[in-house]
Amino acid sequence: MPLTHKKGSTDGTPRALRLTQLAARLRNGDRVALAKGISLAENDPARASKLMGLLRPTGRTFVVGVTGPPGTGKSTLVDKLIDSFRGRGLKVGVIAVDPTSPITGGALLGDRIRMTGHSSDKGVYIRSMASRGWTGGLSRATSQVIQLMDAAGFDLVLLETVGIGQSDIEVVGVSHAVLVVLMPGLGDDIQVSKAGLMEVGDVYVVNKSDLAGADTMIVSLLGLFRGSSRTPSVLKVSAISGDGIDKLEGAIESIRSRFTKGNQELRLKSIRGMIVETARASAMRKFAQASDVRADRLARQVLAGKMTVEAAAARLEK
Amino acid sequence: MPLTHKKGSTDGTPRALRLTQLAARLRNGDRVALAKGISLAENDPARASKLMGLLRPTGRTFVVGVTGPPGTGKSTLVDKLIDSFRGRGLKVGVIAVDPTSPITGGALLGDRIRMTGHSSDKGVYIRSMASRGWTGGLSRATSQVIQLMDAAGFDLVLLETVGIGQSDIEVVGVSHAVLVVLMPGLGDDIQVSKAGLMEVGDVYVVNKSDLAGADTMIVSLLGLFRGSSRTPSVLKVSAISGDGIDKLEGAIESIRSRFTKGNQELRLKSIRGMIVETARASAMRKFAQASDVRADRLARQVLAGKMTVEAAAARLEK
Repeated sequence: MPLTHKKGSTDGTPRALRLTQLAARLRNGDRVALAKGISLAENDPARASKLMGLLRPTGRTFVVGVTGPPGTGKSTLVDKLIDSFRGRGLKVGVIAVDPTSPITGGALLGDRIRMTGHSSDKGVYIRSMASRGWTGGLSRATSQVIQLMDAAGFDLVLLETVGIGQSDIEVVGVSHAVLVVLMPGLGDDIQVSKAGLMEVGDVYVVNKSDLAGADTMIVSLLGLFRGSSRTPSVLKVSAISGDGIDKLEGAIESIRSRFTKGNQELRLKSIRGMIVETARASAMRKFAQASDVRADRLARQVLAGKMTVEAAAARLEK
Repeated sequence: MPLTHKKGSTDGTPRALRLTQLAARLRNGDRVALAKGISLAENDPARASKLMGLLRPTGRTFVVGVTGPPGTGKSTLVDKLIDSFRGRGLKVGVIAVDPTSPITGGALLGDRIRMTGHSSDKGVYIRSMASRGWTGGLSRATSQVIQLMDAAGFDLVLLETVGIGQSDIEVVGVSHAVLVVLMPGLGDDIQVSKAGLMEVGDVYVVNKSDLAGADTMIVSLLGLFRGSSRTPSVLKVSAISGDGIDKLEGAIESIRSRFTKGNQELRLKSIRGMIVETARASAMRKFAQASDVRADRLARQVLAGKMTVEAAAARLEK
């Protein structure tokens, strides 16, 4: 899409010009520009898309997806990983997918815990993004924020999901490495299988290792992968005490070193994921916009016995 | 789509004719025909779609979606609800969404617990359906199985999810009533909010009520809904001991009585959900089929700096 100066903003300033400035500031690692860019990604798809066109992502940022059932301590673990990677001198971005409360309208978890420890560190940028319930639309914004952080010189992005729903699929798609966080007592090996998490992880962590059943769960996990073509790492950690965090960091670093050495398949994986998720989100958005009123009219015809569900669905799809 | 007799099967028998027989047997409540119809829904979208065209769903079946995080005891609760509704003389179908193991290729949970208690009861039909990982495609099949059970004279369908991922969204869409199953100790009120479950339930159940924290959780839930325009039921049960199951049955029955009295909005909700989910699944299937090779080629161009992710996504969407 070519940029022109003809489309001005409402206050008369040429918007394309301001986007050029924003892109330049972003490339200098300006945090205010990054915040502004992220806001565009969340709220103004058209302008965000133009901004992306002005950036040339370096492809330097390594993306770690952090997923797993709710309540397993993903946020605390992410907090500890920030410390670990900061200790190696890496610039760390965090995208925490955060559900929106339908009652208060606000983000439910926000940055409440994490910001306290890292707010004065210029090498860390943490941003919560609303999952907007179950309606999707996170895909495009998440991909764009990764590109923004990449342009702004972040070495590593930790992308944390809420552990349920579409956002988890998206995280897997755009990540170079996927960390699955579990805990003892949620139904043991079944929880992994049930959640469809067995195919997706590069590293499996049993968090809250002080709880009874942690060792049993490690054994179950190892058993699940025995005989499989996949050999992910399986580790026991305690995010709160810090036990095992060094090994977890090592497991992630060993994947990151393949990435920094230029492994093509690993580099392509995330880009392919971003392309597919962005396209899918766009297709779904168009579909949802077009279908509300029409679905209702078609449902009335089905209820009246004038049409089958199949025929109505085919009609809706056109 | 008009049915013709021109398209024969590979063995020379006109397939349309056999579908007509299958439809007739289904309408008589024949269990073998139902099993055959469900297999078509799972494995042969084109023929299943034709079969749907031959059925005139009665719209009599009340669909209860059962969702919630993994490990909260949904299966045990569904088992108890089968007993309750059978006690009222209702014919009960169960669709249990069941993840497929990527390693063994088989269903992981299957009918292992439930079939033992109900296998000799002709008024109960239980079917596990594979979620096929995270690739979707469950939507269409689920909607079709509901229509098959409806045609076969089932009064009530319990549709149970694995508690994570896309299948939960689909369950909500096609159900007349949604039951959200929780348990104490998973992060209390946060687990509901985190999982995006707050918007969707008609009845919230705190299962495993013998565990510490059950009462606190009930209070938290009531607090979450106070001041909201929604007033779902909030109940404490123990699926294993049976405590509170009568109240849960009552809560579901009160929604079902609105349905049986012909409440239009309730009837439209499920049909609309089936239309939208069927159309969405079809759109996504076409998208996924078309995008694999192309996404890879586009990703290489992005990696080479010849194209932005946005431009590649727009290209992929066409």
